[in-house]
Amino acid sequence: MAISTFGFEFRQTAQDGAARTGVLTTPHGEVETPTFMPVGTQGSVKTLTPEEVAATGARIVLGNTYHLWLRPGPEVIDKIGGLHKFTCWPHAMLTDSGGFQAFSLADRRTVSEEGFVFRSHLDGSRRVLTPEVAMQVQGALGADIAMQLDICPPGTASPREMDEACAVTTRWARRCLSAKRPDQALFGIVQGGTDVRRRLAHADELAAMSFDGLALGGFSVGEPIEKMHEVLAEVAPRLDASRPRYLMGVGTPTDLVRAIGAGVDMFDCVLPTRNARNGQALTKQGRIVIKQARYKEDFSPLDPGCECPTCTQGYSRAYLRHLFMAGEVVVLRMLTEHNLHLYGRLVREARAAIAAGRYAAFARSWLTKDVADS
Amino acid sequence: MAISTFGFEFRQTAQDGAARTGVLTTPHGEVETPTFMPVGTQGSVKTLTPEEVAATGARIVLGNTYHLWLRPGPEVIDKIGGLHKFTCWPHAMLTDSGGFQAFSLADRRTVSEEGFVFRSHLDGSRRVLTPEVAMQVQGALGADIAMQLDICPPGTASPREMDEACAVTTRWARRCLSAKRPDQALFGIVQGGTDVRRRLAHADELAAMSFDGLALGGFSVGEPIEKMHEVLAEVAPRLDASRPRYLMGVGTPTDLVRAIGAGVDMFDCVLPTRNARNGQALTKQGRIVIKQARYKEDFSPLDPGCECPTCTQGYSRAYLRHLFMAGEVVVLRMLTEHNLHLYGRLVREARAAIAAGRYAAFARSWLTKDVADS
Repeated sequence: MAISTFGFEFRQTAQDGAARTGVLTTPHGEVETPTFMPVGTQGSVKTLTPEEVAATGARIVLGNTYHLWLRPGPEVIDKIGGLHKFTCWPHAMLTDSGGFQAFSLADRRTVSEEGFVFRSHLDGSRRVLTPEVAMQVQGALGADIAMQLDICPPGTASPREMDEACAVTTRWARRCLSAKRPDQALFGIVQGGTDVRRRLAHADELAAMSFDGLALGGFSVGEPIEKMHEVLAEVAPRLDASRPRYLMGVGTPTDLVRAIGAGVDMFDCVLPTRNARNGQALTKQGRIVIKQARYKEDFSPLDPGCECPTCTQGYSRAYLRHLFMAGEVVVLRMLTEHNLHLYGRLVREARAAIAAGRYAAFARSWLTKDVADS
Repeated sequence: MAISTFGFEFRQTAQDGAARTGVLTTPHGEVETPTFMPVGTQGSVKTLTPEEVAATGARIVLGNTYHLWLRPGPEVIDKIGGLHKFTCWPHAMLTDSGGFQAFSLADRRTVSEEGFVFRSHLDGSRRVLTPEVAMQVQGALGADIAMQLDICPPGTASPREMDEACAVTTRWARRCLSAKRPDQALFGIVQGGTDVRRRLAHADELAAMSFDGLALGGFSVGEPIEKMHEVLAEVAPRLDASRPRYLMGVGTPTDLVRAIGAGVDMFDCVLPTRNARNGQALTKQGRIVIKQARYKEDFSPLDPGCECPTCTQGYSRAYLRHLFMAGEVVVLRMLTEHNLHLYGRLVREARAAIAAGRYAAFARSWLTKDVADS
């Protein structure tokens, strides 16, 4: 694929089994894949500055359209020149469509062929989220990559609901492509639940359109995690290899290792940041629940092998526990940095392993213990 | 005064009227005075890392004995080698005696000649805070400077209560000096309310003892602020010039400028950090209450002349307002850094002005507007 006029390109650089490395070129720099996108829900990766996010290795973050639409509003962000300038994030950025949150957070929502109608969870105001509005709001936010509006059914949805979700998502895909900003990349979203045939059929429909990338939505929505990985192993490697493959909202370090093994290039998940704020530090050896009494006089760092600021500055588990028990917010940042550094290290080591043709051995080294099942 | 065996010394380096500069030598480095000590209530200057605190220019911080005594407990901190090591703060440190918080925060407190008896505000446990216990706990915390236990009456106390507070404070002063760790500096605390004669008499009593510094307690406890400055102008210059003079718990930038003019060397106050967490940014031009609607589309920095990370990284008032409205804790840090940088700049510029013999002009430039009256 050639670099298009607005500077978006994806290029595969190495392959090892189904796993692959690549380079995503965006107007805000290159992103090496596989990559993990920290989630900046409200224009901020919670507790961190942009510099601290970049220091974890992240070169792309995710912004939530639903939240930013409601507050401060796309007009404010547009006026300063987009979400990059508003948040002082210099690297690449992707925004979701807002559909998932409109569905899960908003009050009194209804779905029709036209789109979502819902009440803002902040002020109760009535909002209509159509594919065209999703493109318009994301256009104002001005991320490098926008996402189509889709229907994301729960894991418990019936086959008929799954079929319908795919059909509507396909029709919305066309409307999004028609309404998108010409200088923004747009990814389509493959739905279909845990039925491999339905997934592949929907992937074919979307791959036939001019999307710049293909995402797998509707995973980690209540289905058994083993089932997800079974389906991913079948579906991910068959997604058009010339475009980046993005697994939405997943997951634990183990999930990433397995999905990278299936050929996924991009991830986002609130797990490392949210768990940090709940007092959980992830390490390759397992989870540390910092409030536990066993850490009261534990003067060792979270993880002696970790290169994050929290571990290298000398903060002990005892001190972090004290800060957490005392309600000092600085500890939420310390744990968030630690967890995001773990994810940054995971994808960095995964890329090196793929390039060296030793991904299977790398995966085994990470899969001995699931460090973050929640 | 010669350097004593444990490495504590104070040396005046310049004088301009009553204002003066000095160098406080401690086992954890030199502190140029006048200096402002950020308050690290629970072993952390709220929202900041030690590196960020030091970047504001601070070379000494204050730790609260009451809080650390109750949680995590001095035995935990002693075991790792003291509060410096526990919190990873490499510079100088002062701890208060715990008396003020035992008086203001604890439940069911009583005062006698022996000391304070109170119930912990955390778990209701009964605690006895005598001069000896104050020295023991501060000894375990291991700060460079400890404070004597004192009685700090409210601004509304009667003359008789003020006299009694001075008398008990003097007796406790002797007990603290007897019980103190030999390798820790100890400051006495002058009480006496707003009566200049009582203040001077009490200062004489304490100056006759072997304290390493003299503090002015019992200010900013409800008396009119003009009255405080009147008394300071009389009392501060007459405190023994060979020892550092520390005005406890004061104040706004204007208060600092005036008190430095009266010869005070050291300050601590929660104002810059607490106001930051309430969404107030202090600038030389006045206060910015960041939640105000006027900042919604204000894309300028808090203070274009400020060198703090928040102002130089490009965060706009609009972005800071958005983060504050959205409840993102990172903004509390951004405002805290900004405010502490202002205090750091104030004392740095004050020192330069005193050394250059132009303190009066400097003071006028800061006194045109009180930027932080609350």
